[in-house]
Amino acid sequence: MDFTFDGVTISGGFWADMQKKNREVTVPAVYDRFYETGRVEALACRWKEGEPKRPHIFWDSDIAKWLESAAYVLAKHPDPDLESKAEEIIDLISENQWEDGYINSFYTSVTPESRFTDRTCHELYCAGHLIEAAVAYYYATGRDRLLKCVEKYADLIDRLFRVEQSVPFLTPGHEEIELALVRLFRCTGKEKYLTLSRFFIDTRGNNDRDTEYNGVKHEYSQSEKPVREMDSALGHAVRAGYLYTGMADVASLTGDAELLAACRRLYDDVTRRKMYITGGVGSSHAGEAFTVPFDLPSETAYAETCAAISMMFFSQRLLEAEGESRYADTVERILYNGFLSGLSLSGDAFFYENPLSVHVRNRIKNTSTVHGERYPGIKRQKVFDCSCCPPNITRVLGSLERYVCRRNGDALMIDQYTDSLIEGNGYTVRISTDYPVSGEIRVSCRGLRSLGLRIPGWCREFTVSEPFALENGYAMIDAPGDLTLSLSMPAVLMIANPEVTDCAGRGAVQRGPVVYAYEGIDNGGYSPERFLISPELNASVEKDAFCPLPLLTVDGEFIPDAGYLYKPYFDEIGEIRPRPARIKLIPYFAFANRGLTDMAVWMRLG
Amino acid sequence: MDFTFDGVTISGGFWADMQKKNREVTVPAVYDRFYETGRVEALACRWKEGEPKRPHIFWDSDIAKWLESAAYVLAKHPDPDLESKAEEIIDLISENQWEDGYINSFYTSVTPESRFTDRTCHELYCAGHLIEAAVAYYYATGRDRLLKCVEKYADLIDRLFRVEQSVPFLTPGHEEIELALVRLFRCTGKEKYLTLSRFFIDTRGNNDRDTEYNGVKHEYSQSEKPVREMDSALGHAVRAGYLYTGMADVASLTGDAELLAACRRLYDDVTRRKMYITGGVGSSHAGEAFTVPFDLPSETAYAETCAAISMMFFSQRLLEAEGESRYADTVERILYNGFLSGLSLSGDAFFYENPLSVHVRNRIKNTSTVHGERYPGIKRQKVFDCSCCPPNITRVLGSLERYVCRRNGDALMIDQYTDSLIEGNGYTVRISTDYPVSGEIRVSCRGLRSLGLRIPGWCREFTVSEPFALENGYAMIDAPGDLTLSLSMPAVLMIANPEVTDCAGRGAVQRGPVVYAYEGIDNGGYSPERFLISPELNASVEKDAFCPLPLLTVDGEFIPDAGYLYKPYFDEIGEIRPRPARIKLIPYFAFANRGLTDMAVWMRLG
Repeated sequence: MDFTFDGVTISGGFWADMQKKNREVTVPAVYDRFYETGRVEALACRWKEGEPKRPHIFWDSDIAKWLESAAYVLAKHPDPDLESKAEEIIDLISENQWEDGYINSFYTSVTPESRFTDRTCHELYCAGHLIEAAVAYYYATGRDRLLKCVEKYADLIDRLFRVEQSVPFLTPGHEEIELALVRLFRCTGKEKYLTLSRFFIDTRGNNDRDTEYNGVKHEYSQSEKPVREMDSALGHAVRAGYLYTGMADVASLTGDAELLAACRRLYDDVTRRKMYITGGVGSSHAGEAFTVPFDLPSETAYAETCAAISMMFFSQRLLEAEGESRYADTVERILYNGFLSGLSLSGDAFFYENPLSVHVRNRIKNTSTVHGERYPGIKRQKVFDCSCCPPNITRVLGSLERYVCRRNGDALMIDQYTDSLIEGNGYTVRISTDYPVSGEIRVSCRGLRSLGLRIPGWCREFTVSEPFALENGYAMIDAPGDLTLSLSMPAVLMIANPEVTDCAGRGAVQRGPVVYAYEGIDNGGYSPERFLISPELNASVEKDAFCPLPLLTVDGEFIPDAGYLYKPYFDEIGEIRPRPARIKLIPYFAFANRGLTDMAVWMRLG
Repeated sequence: MDFTFDGVTISGGFWADMQKKNREVTVPAVYDRFYETGRVEALACRWKEGEPKRPHIFWDSDIAKWLESAAYVLAKHPDPDLESKAEEIIDLISENQWEDGYINSFYTSVTPESRFTDRTCHELYCAGHLIEAAVAYYYATGRDRLLKCVEKYADLIDRLFRVEQSVPFLTPGHEEIELALVRLFRCTGKEKYLTLSRFFIDTRGNNDRDTEYNGVKHEYSQSEKPVREMDSALGHAVRAGYLYTGMADVASLTGDAELLAACRRLYDDVTRRKMYITGGVGSSHAGEAFTVPFDLPSETAYAETCAAISMMFFSQRLLEAEGESRYADTVERILYNGFLSGLSLSGDAFFYENPLSVHVRNRIKNTSTVHGERYPGIKRQKVFDCSCCPPNITRVLGSLERYVCRRNGDALMIDQYTDSLIEGNGYTVRISTDYPVSGEIRVSCRGLRSLGLRIPGWCREFTVSEPFALENGYAMIDAPGDLTLSLSMPAVLMIANPEVTDCAGRGAVQRGPVVYAYEGIDNGGYSPERFLISPELNASVEKDAFCPLPLLTVDGEFIPDAGYLYKPYFDEIGEIRPRPARIKLIPYFAFANRGLTDMAVWMRLG
């Protein structure tokens, strides 16, 4: 079975607020932008050459992710207006499905004779998102109209790609369908979809006819070798993350230890060598890609929101397969930082890229160069030409329930802490907490044989009010009743592996799962380079109306204007004497919500 | 008068060795590459559409700079073969000069009808280099054939641009002619060339008809405002440096205090905010340009060799105008570091860009991205498509005599120390030194009223064996005889202004004028990030056969493999305990001469 929301209700606190904003602001805003830009209209497949709003090869995926998001909202909150928009989209999709099952608004309107001829053109990627939307919509509403459409489409794909192999390429240029087919299999019980998913996975980099991918390197699309042999995360990070997720799905469903081992190697490569402290991945704009180990520049960090999401999916699948808390730690790292930074606090504007530092001077004052250096944007946008991130954010926010807990035999494993109610077969668990404002978590269990409480990797001290045994990073409690878990959550200064060149002489502040950042607006408008942070921090936690999670103020020093460009270390000529200062920090995800101002996660150490 | 070599002989030591290599290896190598690539043949103006080796708009400038270099060699070392190559070039230029004086092999062969229609096409830049070559060749050989050609050409330019203003643009897109016309004025005594130079300078950014420069910003070509109002170095760094040099020339020759003040502001902006510790300028590849203050990235540093040279020219002009030692300090900083790094130790390969760090992993192992990130090259090339740097290096090496000393009233000012003999009107000065190996300098003067010895800005302790007075950074000695100057030259750890983000937590080692760099090849092949340098250095100086200047070994620590990507500062989990180590450093200019290996000027501080 697919994940559904049966049994988990997020009832209050930070996550409930995020879901409310998603429902009331973000989901409608994404729809409106997609409507205005022609993405809804495109589904009618009536566009003609010369008309404006030419459909794009990935527009179906944008709509599909929005529809999936709408399904998650509708599953919990009836909304006739939202439902009618969703139904209208489904009308247009089903009306324009080809006789043989094919669905794609771009090819159908623009170049029907070329369908399935170009591996780079995202058809299977769009198909995957349509499948995910159909499954979600079916679970949300019980209506299977779209599900039937995508089944027919999946059957066509199975015939052309796997059975007949009558198409010029055999695997998608942009992965996604692999994990989607697993969802379709779980929903329908039809083994052929799992088989097709495994076919795509095992054909990739093997005999997938991929002699050329638009002139770019095979690594870009994870086609450099059979996936089972991979040990290094390479290429376009979103593609990679979706592929790895599908691999983990297939591996656990089929008990494929070799494939699971490849997943573990790739996960380790990413999380030990290629992930920002915010959970962002894919550090380079060139190819939106993973690069080499420890190449994690701050100012030019690409760290696409979708890439963070794809790694969250992958980590969650490994958590479900292996049960080790480190996977849930990664989900949490991404969720509170590099994922959430993709959304404005207002809920209607988005980052595609998520840099770890902003020196505004570099970005807006440089009139000197021809084209300017390439930097990530520093103002969230309402919509992008390539607007994959906004509806990816809405579907994750709409499905946060998935990350709360898992069954593991007799045990209920609590993976992520949020105010919630979990109702299962004969048991009820209520979790009361203001996490991550504090680490105090009350749990009331009725009818449960065993409870597992994740002890986060960032936590050095904790208490559980009941006897427990530590297992895979979880405090396991037998026959739990009412109990409390206290996670000590001091602000901590973090440092990076020495090979991360941009982090030399710098530290980042983290409190619980939340990574903090400096913004100039809170600190006299100065560049972050003018402050030195004290490793002891001596942090105080404070609320600020603009931000849903607490701010921190920490000890440091302020460097007055330096009178030199270079000077001897021991020379007092032009010496600058730092003076003690308190430095205000905000949660990283909340940066760039108050106008253009400098930002830094990694601060100079005093 | 122009500078000539009358009176200064570089007689031994480092500079004499550089000049010998230039004469024996570099000048012939640049000629051979230019010959092979068709640059010599192009001067015959016989190229036809469809043939290979299509002439390029800036090829005349390449040839001209080579010819200027050859002149400097011939002035000191008769060489029939070199002379016949130079004469052949002059034959071709004079044979193909137009009736009205126009000279340009590209326009003459490719598109004669379009001459002087496109400000972006380097005609005046090429004209400037031809003028410089002609002046140098005249001084070297006494033959004025090319000088007459360029006078006729300059007369044409004067008529079309200044007198008639009958051309669609009034100032060069790429500056150079301004300073060249001043040389022509000094050589011929004809005031009109000075007037034309001043016309180009004052028309720039004023009413130069520059409404559009190829779609790029006016700042790119220093056309954003009248030059007298400028206070920020902007745009293409080589263009800027040549313009500023011409401005300083005109300002001093005409006693134009306002123009000189603009020069000082621009010089201060560059040297206090926009110059690498190596003397490199123009930090961005985008537009080969200056960017914003303190934006001096190490790994992507553009720092074109020609830009360093242009700032050396500019600094020298200001030194000659104002007499303050800080200008000579800048000449020295550039000469021993960011200029010399442009040439391989073998003398026949060149860097266009001069990065301050190289992590080889970023550059050769990144198979993951579509295009790859853009980094400077890390292997010197024999020739470039745009091969401006090699003949710029040869002409500077050929004319190092210019930088040795100046007359200032009765005084002879020694600006740069090298083994040399200076013979003037009634006086002789012999300088004996192994500088910059040591700071011991013996000076024997005969018949001189006053001697000025520059006390370099990097020098904290010095002694002079005779009584002296400090003036403008020079130790002034009356009626000098035999004396010694001892400049204390310990290795010193330098730090950068806090706003230079890439230098956070890092220091660079400098000894005398020479900036040092780490190379992996000397230190176990490790990345520089694995070493921490101790501020006390405790340096030892040693010779190594591969390098003409001494190497250093300094105190530091080695960081064994770290077991974490991120960890709490105070947490011993995954702790890495650095162990004491000695770190070997080489002069920066000598990097990348022993294969691909990591390099860093700015090392992590322990």
